[in-house]
Amino acid sequence: MIAWTSFIPKNFVSVLIFLLMNENSGFRDHAAASSDKIFIKATGGGAYKFADLFKEKLEISLDKEDEMNCLVTGANFLLKAVHQEAFTYLDGQKEFVQIDHNDLYPYLLVNIGSGVSMIKVDGDGKFERVSGTNLGGGTFWGLGRLLTKCKNFDELLELSHQGNNRVIDMLVGDIYGGTDYAKVGLSATTIASSFGKAISDNKELEEYKPEDISRSLLRMISNNIGQISYLNALRFGLKRIFFAGFFIRGHAYTMDTISVAVHFWSKGEAKAMFLRHEGFLGALGAFMSYEKQSLDGLMVHKIMQRFPISVSSAGDKIYCSLNSDWNLNDDSIQCSVYGT
Amino acid sequence: MIAWTSFIPKNFVSVLIFLLMNENSGFRDHAAASSDKIFIKATGGGAYKFADLFKEKLEISLDKEDEMNCLVTGANFLLKAVHQEAFTYLDGQKEFVQIDHNDLYPYLLVNIGSGVSMIKVDGDGKFERVSGTNLGGGTFWGLGRLLTKCKNFDELLELSHQGNNRVIDMLVGDIYGGTDYAKVGLSATTIASSFGKAISDNKELEEYKPEDISRSLLRMISNNIGQISYLNALRFGLKRIFFAGFFIRGHAYTMDTISVAVHFWSKGEAKAMFLRHEGFLGALGAFMSYEKQSLDGLMVHKIMQRFPISVSSAGDKIYCSLNSDWNLNDDSIQCSVYGT
Repeated sequence: MIAWTSFIPKNFVSVLIFLLMNENSGFRDHAAASSDKIFIKATGGGAYKFADLFKEKLEISLDKEDEMNCLVTGANFLLKAVHQEAFTYLDGQKEFVQIDHNDLYPYLLVNIGSGVSMIKVDGDGKFERVSGTNLGGGTFWGLGRLLTKCKNFDELLELSHQGNNRVIDMLVGDIYGGTDYAKVGLSATTIASSFGKAISDNKELEEYKPEDISRSLLRMISNNIGQISYLNALRFGLKRIFFAGFFIRGHAYTMDTISVAVHFWSKGEAKAMFLRHEGFLGALGAFMSYEKQSLDGLMVHKIMQRFPISVSSAGDKIYCSLNSDWNLNDDSIQCSVYGT
Repeated sequence: MIAWTSFIPKNFVSVLIFLLMNENSGFRDHAAASSDKIFIKATGGGAYKFADLFKEKLEISLDKEDEMNCLVTGANFLLKAVHQEAFTYLDGQKEFVQIDHNDLYPYLLVNIGSGVSMIKVDGDGKFERVSGTNLGGGTFWGLGRLLTKCKNFDELLELSHQGNNRVIDMLVGDIYGGTDYAKVGLSATTIASSFGKAISDNKELEEYKPEDISRSLLRMISNNIGQISYLNALRFGLKRIFFAGFFIRGHAYTMDTISVAVHFWSKGEAKAMFLRHEGFLGALGAFMSYEKQSLDGLMVHKIMQRFPISVSSAGDKIYCSLNSDWNLNDDSIQCSVYGT
């Protein structure tokens, strides 16, 4: 699956780098022996970020595909082709949702990468980016890195498991003497102000546990995304909201917070849904764009003929089976989505 | 004006403490000579936070008034009674808005304190808290304190003047090789991910300027409030959005960011409006609640008879004129709203 997105599944990268760099793969010889240029479909920020690197180091041109189009194509493919792709997640309970292909549209696709895009999808190739927010995965990881000195995104995410956001968030009960503000439907445990306790605690950053900061940040970002998503679904009368993007990573607390936010703001009328292959929408869409054009003369077509790749799905994995003469330890490359 | 809110205007406090503590004021003697209890109308978090302190130290009971009710009463009073109370603010240009008293309702009141309340106002005493967000003034100040070591809210706010959020925010242009993402209406300078550059900069917290962090935080919070406010106004078909609360403090960049957010998300169809006495809504509402009940037997009524207070407004100040026999340097107490 030679495609590229901004939030890049690690194993896609390793497959690609293997293809391009491995002396035994025959890929480079094959490319060198050909007068044709090599094109690889690419989308998202990575298509721009790595374009020069691929051109200079690997003599490969990244054929940029529109990111929103790829995300929608990938989502539509997964929702139609993969059994038990969509599920709800609340209070630790995961429930798969049966999708009626004849009643799929319209829906709201919320893709959470560094930033967040909210796309109203009306059919194959029929969509509009109706909203978004700049409080996304990049905000969680950027602020988290500065506040906790964590070295990577998953370490920060992992920390949140042991954290308690009430140590640093100001709750309604903190304002109203431990009681609810029942008249307006706010319980004592509702967060009134994220990081609000840091105003009066008179504590230095180092005095807060990184796990509490991580949990507070994760809840702040996830709740905000859930709220804005619901308001946009309401605006356009959309019954379904699918959350995807590599920010989620099948992380229980992230999904739980988004679900609680949608439930709270919709007063139980709307449900958040997630996709098992949440992080692969853009890559799938870019890959599928090969079908939309003549492949004659495209080097990548010849490569794919020589090294056929078939895509299949089982459980929470996508398998890219390679009919391979390369020195691989395994004849299938497993693209984990941090198993849910 | 003896009333209390969670975000307390400093001068109200000084007036109150003067009344209660000043040996020459005659207040304490008057109270001691009376068998009646002293009640002071109070609302917001301060009514709970300081109740025991007032009871123990000053033998005064805080008579708690509902916060939302006080905010709405205060806003309605200001919008009807004070000339040039509401204004728009965009690109540094302040324009007063003429309010037709017969066409005031409905409107959305967005009160930004530690957290944010969004209240649909349909008339005097007719309102509903329809939404809110936990990303408010407490989040700006709480995160800002931890990230910059500023010692107070205004110092952090002041810092933002010299800051440049592009140093730390990931812009659309940073993702798309310096270009716009015109197809979905995103310019290269649109913030894609607040604090997103901190992911890849590989810089420590100390390597960022506090003024850049402050500006990025202020923009993140203000833009988010503007977006959620607009979505709620749209949801209920409200033409007017008034922003108030002591977070704003007449701060140009805060108002500009909120205005730009409302303009951006509404595609120019909606305008943010601000109130000159933004921080006094709750206090005014609590004060005005005296009128709603019999004052017989309330000590405060006797105090007010003895030391009559008349409220007037001029320019961007409220004057509480005291017909006073106290040793005050000035016969008027000026409650500044950080003059706009």
